[in-house]
Amino acid sequence: MIPETINGKKVIPFKGVGKYKPTGRKYAPKISTSADYPLDGNKLVDSLKDALIKSGIKDGMTISTHHHFRDGDLIAVQIFDIAHEMGIKDLVWFPSASFTCHQPLIKYLEDGTIHHIEGSMNGPLGKFTTQGKMKGVGILRSHGGRYQAVQDGEVEIDIAVIAAPTADPFGNSNGVNGPSACGLLGFALADSQYADKVIVVTDNLVPFPCIPWQIHGNYVDYVVKVDQVGIPEKIVSGTTKITKSPDRLLIAELTAKFCEEAELIYDGFSFQAGAGGTALSIGIYFGEIMRRKGIKARFARGGSNKYLVDLLEEGLVEYILDGQTFDLDGVRSMRDNPRHVNTSPFTSYNYHGKGNFEGILDVVILGATEVDVNFNANVVTHSDGYLLHGIGGWQNCLFGKNVILPIPLFRDRIPVIRDEVTTICGPGELIDIIVTERGIAINPLRKDLINKMKNSKLPIKTIQQLKDEAEKICGKPKAIEFEEKIVAAIKWVDGTVIDVVKKIKE
Amino acid sequence: MIPETINGKKVIPFKGVGKYKPTGRKYAPKISTSADYPLDGNKLVDSLKDALIKSGIKDGMTISTHHHFRDGDLIAVQIFDIAHEMGIKDLVWFPSASFTCHQPLIKYLEDGTIHHIEGSMNGPLGKFTTQGKMKGVGILRSHGGRYQAVQDGEVEIDIAVIAAPTADPFGNSNGVNGPSACGLLGFALADSQYADKVIVVTDNLVPFPCIPWQIHGNYVDYVVKVDQVGIPEKIVSGTTKITKSPDRLLIAELTAKFCEEAELIYDGFSFQAGAGGTALSIGIYFGEIMRRKGIKARFARGGSNKYLVDLLEEGLVEYILDGQTFDLDGVRSMRDNPRHVNTSPFTSYNYHGKGNFEGILDVVILGATEVDVNFNANVVTHSDGYLLHGIGGWQNCLFGKNVILPIPLFRDRIPVIRDEVTTICGPGELIDIIVTERGIAINPLRKDLINKMKNSKLPIKTIQQLKDEAEKICGKPKAIEFEEKIVAAIKWVDGTVIDVVKKIKE
Repeated sequence: MIPETINGKKVIPFKGVGKYKPTGRKYAPKISTSADYPLDGNKLVDSLKDALIKSGIKDGMTISTHHHFRDGDLIAVQIFDIAHEMGIKDLVWFPSASFTCHQPLIKYLEDGTIHHIEGSMNGPLGKFTTQGKMKGVGILRSHGGRYQAVQDGEVEIDIAVIAAPTADPFGNSNGVNGPSACGLLGFALADSQYADKVIVVTDNLVPFPCIPWQIHGNYVDYVVKVDQVGIPEKIVSGTTKITKSPDRLLIAELTAKFCEEAELIYDGFSFQAGAGGTALSIGIYFGEIMRRKGIKARFARGGSNKYLVDLLEEGLVEYILDGQTFDLDGVRSMRDNPRHVNTSPFTSYNYHGKGNFEGILDVVILGATEVDVNFNANVVTHSDGYLLHGIGGWQNCLFGKNVILPIPLFRDRIPVIRDEVTTICGPGELIDIIVTERGIAINPLRKDLINKMKNSKLPIKTIQQLKDEAEKICGKPKAIEFEEKIVAAIKWVDGTVIDVVKKIKE
Repeated sequence: MIPETINGKKVIPFKGVGKYKPTGRKYAPKISTSADYPLDGNKLVDSLKDALIKSGIKDGMTISTHHHFRDGDLIAVQIFDIAHEMGIKDLVWFPSASFTCHQPLIKYLEDGTIHHIEGSMNGPLGKFTTQGKMKGVGILRSHGGRYQAVQDGEVEIDIAVIAAPTADPFGNSNGVNGPSACGLLGFALADSQYADKVIVVTDNLVPFPCIPWQIHGNYVDYVVKVDQVGIPEKIVSGTTKITKSPDRLLIAELTAKFCEEAELIYDGFSFQAGAGGTALSIGIYFGEIMRRKGIKARFARGGSNKYLVDLLEEGLVEYILDGQTFDLDGVRSMRDNPRHVNTSPFTSYNYHGKGNFEGILDVVILGATEVDVNFNANVVTHSDGYLLHGIGGWQNCLFGKNVILPIPLFRDRIPVIRDEVTTICGPGELIDIIVTERGIAINPLRKDLINKMKNSKLPIKTIQQLKDEAEKICGKPKAIEFEEKIVAAIKWVDGTVIDVVKKIKE
């Protein structure tokens, strides 16, 4: 099912969790010399176009951007406007994620300016890809997988463009200050470390030193001052509202009760709850449990938002280790509170490091578009076959000690638990608990949890029972028809290919 | 004068400032996988010996340590005690600096446990080396040159041992907390990033996460808990006392007056004053000038100490960019004040980056053991020919905008200004001003400064005049006699060899 090559490059099919062992060496960037850089540290150039030309932009190059501005990014499209204007073709766009604001890039995918995207293809770009319209094959990676791919040299970035809310003329940059503050710049870390040329674009230029320097100017070639790098209102994710759906609230409550009964919430525990409406509610329940028990969490992983910041400020959480801020409370807290720590996919997620900290987390709450009866889960395609989401940190988080998917039993009358998922993104052996509004299924591999919960009054069921219940209500879902053409590949955290997405038959 | 090979490796002789351009790629460490590390992040092993054995210690390996504990280091000697006990031979010790506390290693240099040292050879180790007793040739590098050598693969570290005042079981570590707090761990950054195996040794183990994580556990293989990693009283440098010598105070005053008259002290300027007695006094004069003029410095480079921290806290300095803390006020300030920033040789000094920040500094105050009439300076050997000091950040700092050497005209009745220095560590073209108690010499290359100071009442003289005055008082110094054998090489910031030290004829 996994082809031998994708986009002309050999691929290694998924071997099993922890089974593929890399034997090579990390990617070795060219050695620079300060003799080639202005001695006074002033790397300012006139415009993004200037910087791209000085960086030697040409056909076939790989250009990277980060997504800390989320749907408020104003820079990525400009890069390809310039490339198009210069008549450059066959670029690879390597974003850490794409959003609806990147829809204007479809015309450059159509006219050959961009050959393909390696990165999430959310929304309209995903639809375009699933329809088989992209020249190359899209490559989806987790946040940790993206760091791994750059570190290992699977992706060689020719030019990294790092939009920064604040920077100095040397290129030191951060995301916590300035009118477009987005919190941090961790998704651009690998790009800064390994890209051949690095351009920092900012709308808030400060004299050296820009402190904190989340990105080090020592990696930066050029700095560009523009009027605006991001739209602040759109930087904040619209999904960070607590759910009002009674079903979702029930799922959140069941999840919290399960965690408490299974003794996953203890003094000094750690959790990652995410930013979806259900996940937010779970975080609030966790707060109530900690308050009642008089305990606190050693740390929580962000995506941070007001609710998590509240727990930090109340002292219920000792540290937030944050990968991206989802609202302005998150930004403020990261700026002002030394216990609100900015992280990067290197520290948190990279599987090809000497460990990463996901395995330390006690409770990890994740979403999924589909789960199968073997607990394999899908997070990129919908049950209609369209590729509509990126992997984000999802695959990386599966290494947590107790991975819980609180999901509705069906969406739009289509069951979420299936015989087979449309696209496998995560192997079932890493997923421990499925919580739905009609019952909780524990992975049979987790005999310890099954044993611990055997006298529970919570609605513990088998996953087959949950699937049957859903199908009783919605009927057996129809199979989706695909053509043979592969439109996207799903990488596992170790760089192997765990699944592919095929062109949909429309 | 520079041999073709040293310790069996080809060397490149110094080509001139900014003339040698590297063409290769950075050193590429092996790719690790989290599959080989404990999933729960617990990398604790029983003892340093255990960790060294698990790291595969064997004959001929290169073992690195850092010097943030200064003369209070308790770990480096233990490593070689263990190696000796295991019968291991021909190790290369690669410290970021050595101190008197490392004198016990002489026995291992004698018995072949250690083949040679790459790093500064202060005091007794320097004397031993100059006497031609070390098997291999000592290699001295600046702090930036050490980072460059590791990054570029000139030195491949097999095992890095990082003594850390605080660490968690995953290997995240810092220098600001714990009973042996030494401020920061920046000198160990390259070691953590590039060594094959990395061992963290701590006497203050905290639960994950150890925040701040100055060293990332993602680079660490093993963690060892010991009773004590450093002697706090000896971590603090004994040299951080303001001079009481009238001559030195005069030099300090002349330096400060020169900087003011030459308009080097302006609102938003930057300076690096160092920790010697004279330098401290200069910092105090700078504070007085800023207060009087109602201006402030944008940043100061540390080595930090009470006096620099006072300037920060008074608001006369906006940021301290600190490479090492010299006293407990420095440690406290770095821990508590976000404007007191820990740096590493990567950010501050590495010449093989995309610039570094030394060139941004307006005023750099440095010492020297000797200066010649062409402004070339020596910082490693004394006029008696003995290698008694490391280079430290000295060479890297020469790239500052105005490099000033405030030095006495003679020491122990031996003139400091010479026809030729015993060892060239820094080319004269980078040294701008020599300030002595009997006059100030401006480098003829700095026509701008000569012009600016032409009506000054300060005792501006030529360097030849200063030399003549010294010789009038002390007589012409006798030449030192050396044998042909090369005992140490002095690297320039780009990895080329700028000079060698020969065995002294005793």
